[in-house]
Amino acid sequence: MRILLTNDDGIHAPGLFALYEAFSQDYEVSVVAPETEMSAVGHAITLSQPLRVRSVTKGGRFYGYAVSGTPADCVKIAVKELLDHPPDMVLSGINLGRNVGMDILYSGTVSAATEAAFLGFKAAAISLDTRKTEDFTLAAQFSRAVVRFVMENGLRDGTALNVNIPALPPEQIQGVCFARQGLSRFEERFERRNDPRGNVYYWLMGETTIENGTPDTDFVALKSGMITITPIHYDLTCREELERIQKLRPPAIEV
Amino acid sequence: MRILLTNDDGIHAPGLFALYEAFSQDYEVSVVAPETEMSAVGHAITLSQPLRVRSVTKGGRFYGYAVSGTPADCVKIAVKELLDHPPDMVLSGINLGRNVGMDILYSGTVSAATEAAFLGFKAAAISLDTRKTEDFTLAAQFSRAVVRFVMENGLRDGTALNVNIPALPPEQIQGVCFARQGLSRFEERFERRNDPRGNVYYWLMGETTIENGTPDTDFVALKSGMITITPIHYDLTCREELERIQKLRPPAIEV
Repeated sequence: MRILLTNDDGIHAPGLFALYEAFSQDYEVSVVAPETEMSAVGHAITLSQPLRVRSVTKGGRFYGYAVSGTPADCVKIAVKELLDHPPDMVLSGINLGRNVGMDILYSGTVSAATEAAFLGFKAAAISLDTRKTEDFTLAAQFSRAVVRFVMENGLRDGTALNVNIPALPPEQIQGVCFARQGLSRFEERFERRNDPRGNVYYWLMGETTIENGTPDTDFVALKSGMITITPIHYDLTCREELERIQKLRPPAIEV
Repeated sequence: MRILLTNDDGIHAPGLFALYEAFSQDYEVSVVAPETEMSAVGHAITLSQPLRVRSVTKGGRFYGYAVSGTPADCVKIAVKELLDHPPDMVLSGINLGRNVGMDILYSGTVSAATEAAFLGFKAAAISLDTRKTEDFTLAAQFSRAVVRFVMENGLRDGTALNVNIPALPPEQIQGVCFARQGLSRFEERFERRNDPRGNVYYWLMGETTIENGTPDTDFVALKSGMITITPIHYDLTCREELERIQKLRPPAIEV
């Protein structure tokens, strides 16, 4: 079985290597990942610049391809140019930091998985709810269970799994649940500074997440110690609002 | 009434100016837009660089703020730092080129509207289905009708309207419809080239759109000459797949 690995933290990230180690023994693994860190790029693709591709070795052996683009670029160029055979599954991660609630729209990790789903591949994004530890053991093991789950049960066309894992010792994990995407989001502000020449600039600061959701949503379940799995797709249509406004008279064209 | 205008083609784009002209007579209009073209950036935000903000004048008068970031950055910094009063509505556009189907996930135009919706504002993205003409008359007029529609009928919290307008003379427009987001997408490929030093690089090429959908979907309706309005939100959950997998045994944690 063929697995394509990518991420948004860049090809040298330990979370990606943890997946490589977990799968390369009994899967045919390819790595195609951004050359540099690409967090918060969302579903960006690169149209105004050409993409460069560079082979990366690890311990003297070929490890994968570094691409001068975004996670979505990596998936596209992997399956359309770089790989000899299409992958059976695409995994993106392991991300340092959760990807839940509204914030998944900013996530490069998640966008790589949804891009793979667009292109017709089974895919999952794997995120670990921490910015500190680099112990990916449990998350890497669980990723293997996710791949087996998808191979056994299939996955709806165009859908990817968004998996979030608490950074807890195995015995403290409360279980695994299927959750829907919730409303939680980072509360942000800008910090205004002056540069040495007196010019103003701003840093976007991510503050604490606003917890907003019911126990069946990703962030609330994750915070209670559960591993969460959310099937996500390309469709942003708000069906409730569509149903409501379809009963109204649409805006008129004035000529 | 206060309207915030932004886009992804950059502050000097004529489509943005068309909205400015359409609204500035009887609305209080603010313009906060990217300094340069930011197409296909999706819902990217800028974390690794500070943002610069520059005042832009047009015809000797203050026109708006140019931000060294993405459309989503522009909306955030506008409402959190630059504007004295919150807008009653945020409009993104008028984009040169439609934003329909799966491709809206790549769209900077659409991401500005969804970002505004995240932040609690009423919002719409306006796109004209052409890359050639710069006649925004009908699209700008219709944008006024969209704003009136939203003011009269409200808009569900967290939801924005994605509006696509055919590039046709008014008498050839077939009507206005509420449509769901369809499956259409650009068929892409990479063009491999060699630079003057013999190194390989790749350009991502967008080919023709794969038409894929029923008449109630955005691209199919747009192609039939209809103006389409799609309510979109942050939630990527695939409900059908969630319902299906909730009946299955979840992947197990191996310790």
